[in-house]
Amino acid sequence: MTKPLIALAALALAVPAQAKTPAAPPPPAPSLEQIADDALKSDSHAWDFVEGITTEVGQRQAGTEAEARGRAWAVAWLKAKGFRNVADEPYMMPTWVPGEPGSAEIVSPFPQSLAVAPLGDSGSTGPEGITAEVVMFRTVADLQAAPQGSLKGKIAYVSNAMTRTQDGSQYGFAGPTRWVASGIAASKGALATVIKSVGTDLHRNPHTGGTDFPEGVKPTPGGALSNPDAANLERMFARAKGRPITMKLVLTPRFLGETQSGNVVGEIVGRNPSLPPVLLACHLDSWWLGTGAIDDGAGCAIIAAAAKNVSAAGQPLRTIRVLFAGAEETGLFGSAAYSKAHINETIAVGLESDFGADRIWRFDSNFRTSNPALHKKIALAVARFGVSAGTDVAGGGADLNIVRDQKGALVDLQQDGTRYFDLHHTPDDTLDKIDPVQLRQNVAVWTQVVGILANEATSIQTGGPIPAAPPIMTGK
Amino acid sequence: MTKPLIALAALALAVPAQAKTPAAPPPPAPSLEQIADDALKSDSHAWDFVEGITTEVGQRQAGTEAEARGRAWAVAWLKAKGFRNVADEPYMMPTWVPGEPGSAEIVSPFPQSLAVAPLGDSGSTGPEGITAEVVMFRTVADLQAAPQGSLKGKIAYVSNAMTRTQDGSQYGFAGPTRWVASGIAASKGALATVIKSVGTDLHRNPHTGGTDFPEGVKPTPGGALSNPDAANLERMFARAKGRPITMKLVLTPRFLGETQSGNVVGEIVGRNPSLPPVLLACHLDSWWLGTGAIDDGAGCAIIAAAAKNVSAAGQPLRTIRVLFAGAEETGLFGSAAYSKAHINETIAVGLESDFGADRIWRFDSNFRTSNPALHKKIALAVARFGVSAGTDVAGGGADLNIVRDQKGALVDLQQDGTRYFDLHHTPDDTLDKIDPVQLRQNVAVWTQVVGILANEATSIQTGGPIPAAPPIMTGK
Repeated sequence: MTKPLIALAALALAVPAQAKTPAAPPPPAPSLEQIADDALKSDSHAWDFVEGITTEVGQRQAGTEAEARGRAWAVAWLKAKGFRNVADEPYMMPTWVPGEPGSAEIVSPFPQSLAVAPLGDSGSTGPEGITAEVVMFRTVADLQAAPQGSLKGKIAYVSNAMTRTQDGSQYGFAGPTRWVASGIAASKGALATVIKSVGTDLHRNPHTGGTDFPEGVKPTPGGALSNPDAANLERMFARAKGRPITMKLVLTPRFLGETQSGNVVGEIVGRNPSLPPVLLACHLDSWWLGTGAIDDGAGCAIIAAAAKNVSAAGQPLRTIRVLFAGAEETGLFGSAAYSKAHINETIAVGLESDFGADRIWRFDSNFRTSNPALHKKIALAVARFGVSAGTDVAGGGADLNIVRDQKGALVDLQQDGTRYFDLHHTPDDTLDKIDPVQLRQNVAVWTQVVGILANEATSIQTGGPIPAAPPIMTGK
Repeated sequence: MTKPLIALAALALAVPAQAKTPAAPPPPAPSLEQIADDALKSDSHAWDFVEGITTEVGQRQAGTEAEARGRAWAVAWLKAKGFRNVADEPYMMPTWVPGEPGSAEIVSPFPQSLAVAPLGDSGSTGPEGITAEVVMFRTVADLQAAPQGSLKGKIAYVSNAMTRTQDGSQYGFAGPTRWVASGIAASKGALATVIKSVGTDLHRNPHTGGTDFPEGVKPTPGGALSNPDAANLERMFARAKGRPITMKLVLTPRFLGETQSGNVVGEIVGRNPSLPPVLLACHLDSWWLGTGAIDDGAGCAIIAAAAKNVSAAGQPLRTIRVLFAGAEETGLFGSAAYSKAHINETIAVGLESDFGADRIWRFDSNFRTSNPALHKKIALAVARFGVSAGTDVAGGGADLNIVRDQKGALVDLQQDGTRYFDLHHTPDDTLDKIDPVQLRQNVAVWTQVVGILANEATSIQTGGPIPAAPPIMTGK
């Protein structure tokens, strides 16, 4: 059915006559360990996926025709690679689009342009823009402390530099600048909000991402300045010595109402398809600015390559299902829709890749105390790839709502995030940022771990017999 | 007259009564060597200049009101720092402006946007843009070899990656892609030309710069793709397998005709102002995309700081003149105008800073054989800053036309250009790219070298007596 299988059949017909002598039995399939080791050195799938989708599709803004082209591309790719039960499962979602490229001009006292991009779910200034005085706040807490109404007719600016961490934990500290500042400023009467990008680089590339407005607060225009531009604005405040700084801001995003999106799924069917499957997740959508290479083309590439690699060691016991979720960036709509549609189909264990393509340095599970033998088995198997066993309780990625809803088993394969926030949600999220050596290490580790999990005959959560009924069904 | 002097006068009046006892004689001025050494550790001038002009003015596109604001800012700064004979010397020039931000959309077979910027002196597509098939050439030589008329109705794309070199020599190999490809393609009938950026980074920031059209060839639209976008386009060619690649290109630059620009000059007046002065050059204009921090705000900052520092060691023998030239980027108009206006005023020696703000690693002169003692004196003095003596013949920077026209003495203080072409002519040319430690090394070396030259009583070119008549006047 698939192209590779057809090609192979054609090749078989073309075997010359002297090949009629009795064929030797086929060599045994290589071991999972051998295949994982080989994945460090060569890669037939992961680069092909992420190079292909970033080149042939590019950006895949959630809910748009570009995301739909991404799904069609991914469906064709999975089918060509021999995945079974490939489908694009539709759902409806509220869709926001960024509009024209925005602009932020300082009108006075130091006229010049600052690089800006709108934040997801923020409002529009209209094409004519708004011109207003900028009021600076160092932190979200400072903004929170501003008296009610004090921002009336003003543009709020929130500065809050993000620093670099391997585990990405700084996102929790810097992220609120993007997540809540626009809503707080709007509720205090601000016309619009601009923030310093939640990112660790020094390029003229703003970091977009979603922002939230409290119930009942009308979305105002919200934008992120690139870090060099934010630094420039702050120097302007220092040099203005109290003179007002006036900005003309033009941001024209639009809400399209409900549009169709979808989740792409595909399977490596197991020897016992009645056993709960192993679910590997990523997301297919991206912000419009970049090409969605590290966020999250690489994640889909890694999980699909691992599933294919595991099958090369022989048909696994359990089915391995890949879920290329839609519309993660703008509100986890695909993750929610998948859980809603499939909540009654118990998942054995869920894993997600959505933190770039740099090396995996630690793994965590949420069954370290309930099934220590399996946790230890994985720890021993991944040690040779430089991955240490963590003691955190795995929480799963954004697209694993179904597993969390089922209170199921989770494994987190933690990637090195040191340079992730240089690129996250920027125009710079492009293929060239992926280091093929580190990408292969991801595939090797995923191959090893997924292979163990997909061949696990006992309950992943307990190590005991697999429950007859899905856990989610009992007691409900 | 200047602010610092007024402040000092006010301070003197405020001295308390008990200070009436006879004052000790003022301490002797520190030596040039001491001042140069101190410049490594602290900087009162260079950062102040480049931080100020990038914050308060920003981009300074040649011939525009932004460049004029830059000149006004620089004049005020030089006066405030106590420079004498500060002036903005006007000249007229043909002015090109970039128009609206451009766009390059791949229409088929892989629809997506590529980041593009127009090239200086290129033509306009009109706001409606042009849509045409793209024809790829690996090199300028390949483009040159295309049959006459073969590009009719097409967009030419020239790929020619630049590699990284400390001395910037790769610019000579990669530069022609920008300098001549548009003109060659236009003469073969191409509608427009896009090139891979002449730059060494992997960010979504196109590198602009001037392009040339041969006499009689009407300027066509010309743009640079960022390097990630150029790589994406090349992957599209590989994946299209012969299917045509169609691009919609929108670039709207305009020619404004003649507008006024100017050269800003200022002096540290020497003890013997009748001696030919030492001329220190940089350029004040920048491309519109960045803020002109490394190209060439830093250069002006370095030369001005060095001139100030030398004066702190006592009034120099010769006058030190700084020349902040205008309109270097779009055609060396300031350099030409300065030479034309001042050709009869002999310059003792010229030096230029226009290669970023990274450390100086070598110096060259054009008097190593004619005045070996002075060359050696400089070599010995700068060795302690990690600067080696070169054997190349110094050619001087772009703004030293007058010295070349006079066949005068030149010193080149060679900077480390390893990362210069990551930033050159891009939006990323911003203050944060300047390393203050390396900036100070520049100021220290310049202070030392300018101090030696400005106190040189004999001819810099020969070591002999200073000729009575300017060399340029003899034999003409």
